[in-house]
Amino acid sequence: MKMLINRPQTVVADALRGLAAAHPDLDVDAEARVVVRRDARQGGRVALVSGGGSGHEPLHAGFVGYGMLSAACPGEVFTSPVPDQMVRAAKAVDSGQGVLFVVKNYTGDVLNFDMAAELAEEDGIRVERVLVNDDVAVTDSLYTAGRRGTGATLFVEKIAGAAAEEGAPLEQVAAIARRVNEASGSFGVALSACTTPAKGTPTFDLPDGELELGIGIHGEPGRERRPMMSAGEIAEVAVGSVLDDTANATPVADGPVLALVNGMGATPLLELYGFHAEVARVLAARGVQVARALVGNYVTSLDMAGCSVTLCRADEEMLRLWDAPVQTPALRWGR
Amino acid sequence: MKMLINRPQTVVADALRGLAAAHPDLDVDAEARVVVRRDARQGGRVALVSGGGSGHEPLHAGFVGYGMLSAACPGEVFTSPVPDQMVRAAKAVDSGQGVLFVVKNYTGDVLNFDMAAELAEEDGIRVERVLVNDDVAVTDSLYTAGRRGTGATLFVEKIAGAAAEEGAPLEQVAAIARRVNEASGSFGVALSACTTPAKGTPTFDLPDGELELGIGIHGEPGRERRPMMSAGEIAEVAVGSVLDDTANATPVADGPVLALVNGMGATPLLELYGFHAEVARVLAARGVQVARALVGNYVTSLDMAGCSVTLCRADEEMLRLWDAPVQTPALRWGR
Repeated sequence: MKMLINRPQTVVADALRGLAAAHPDLDVDAEARVVVRRDARQGGRVALVSGGGSGHEPLHAGFVGYGMLSAACPGEVFTSPVPDQMVRAAKAVDSGQGVLFVVKNYTGDVLNFDMAAELAEEDGIRVERVLVNDDVAVTDSLYTAGRRGTGATLFVEKIAGAAAEEGAPLEQVAAIARRVNEASGSFGVALSACTTPAKGTPTFDLPDGELELGIGIHGEPGRERRPMMSAGEIAEVAVGSVLDDTANATPVADGPVLALVNGMGATPLLELYGFHAEVARVLAARGVQVARALVGNYVTSLDMAGCSVTLCRADEEMLRLWDAPVQTPALRWGR
Repeated sequence: MKMLINRPQTVVADALRGLAAAHPDLDVDAEARVVVRRDARQGGRVALVSGGGSGHEPLHAGFVGYGMLSAACPGEVFTSPVPDQMVRAAKAVDSGQGVLFVVKNYTGDVLNFDMAAELAEEDGIRVERVLVNDDVAVTDSLYTAGRRGTGATLFVEKIAGAAAEEGAPLEQVAAIARRVNEASGSFGVALSACTTPAKGTPTFDLPDGELELGIGIHGEPGRERRPMMSAGEIAEVAVGSVLDDTANATPVADGPVLALVNGMGATPLLELYGFHAEVARVLAARGVQVARALVGNYVTSLDMAGCSVTLCRADEEMLRLWDAPVQTPALRWGR
């Protein structure tokens, strides 16, 4: 497998050097592996810290900036960051108003963020935690007790980040973050496996003419394999699975929704937009209104071909915070 | 080859339906294949129209909006749009101040935009044309007389679009567009071929362990094949080729530069940022200052793995117009 890299051992450090070179408004410590918004402590706002294994870019470091994350801690590829990174990030961004940890539900991430929260609290930093577990495809998985955290992470980080930017106190920022997670569901589909730099060969075998439904973002197994399906058929399964899920506190099917049609890394944007047309068609047929849509590569799985759909039942406050200005490497809009 | 599509015949129409669903501020005519900014004729500004074969998304339709293109005309995959689309677009956006056609230098595009300019002028629309031909890798190619147009198209559309948004007259918008093109150079590298929906198999064979230097954005041949190289070695060849090119009116090597590190479609963002670190290193070693950098998938070649580097020797006016607010599906920033 050919890759645009120097050595597998330096992939994450090299990417952080590149991030620093491209985005001078970020303070990137490539050695400690902490990416911090330079003005994080100005204004005395609640800070948001997230992180996780690398290989899902632009998540999370690409979401550090005005109106979203205060800091991110990238781990090795598909490997949780360590508590030391998270504590360092919390110290770098806390202005006394406390820190919200946004944690995707993978065993390693959960354990390490919990330990980091304890250590940070010993240092006098108030910490709240939100666990993102939006993937409706499987309960429990290779790396998870309970549902996996995937695309809803972007919704949580954007909406809670906007609340923090407005000056909301920690409890309120944490509450809306949880509200977004509890109103979100995701379903992913792989047309190919991905290849980690360290391994150099595909993480699993997916024969020609088959796809895997309900895939995770690390190439971990999904619900089932089927002969290849059309974009319309895939949209019916993916959207249907999210709408029919009953585990959520807020049923997504009530709409209106925020919709994320996310590429896993190697699927052309031309195809993602065509797929979004099918997602919109299925939602319309089910009577669900799309309030806002985002189409592109946001929560990826290295060079995997495929996509995921994330839907969040959005109330007016969520939509207002979604529309609020944001200035990060990967998500930007504003006045 | 598995694709996230319905049928090869409907790929472009399906993507346009998705674009319309995701971006209500665009007026998308999926049948006529014209994408128009809804408020294009308000304010009496010069209009920018571009277009070209599909398969390079987000180019061009993803750059339609405030501060950039007024309209885009997508052709079939890797096939020029027809003059009728371009005339229809020109009529939809002209407010009496004239239209600038931004044309990548491929034979079909050039002929069709020339014919469209004649037809539009017969209808009383003033038309100027800028030809983008930034690819330093080859002179003449499979689809081109002279150099190919690639990544500099983004710089031309952003900077000239900002000038138009400010109210600059047609001659001035055209002049800065030409100035950007004449100050830009690009060099692309393929680690894999791409697969068009119609053909269903890779456009060329690239053996394991080899890469192709100087590739175009349609999988057309480049300069040479070599055994696989590291990111640092690739950056030396790509950046070196642009800096050493002598065809430009404004030598890029004088710096400061706008730098675009562009993914061809299937290369993970993690790798693109690592590659940008090497590009920045090579530029620093040559004494060229990077004024602004953009890293991501902007001028793609379907599912090709690889990247390109585009550098533009930017003067103060170009930098000011680059920084001006922009609101399009794929490029957004602002106050």
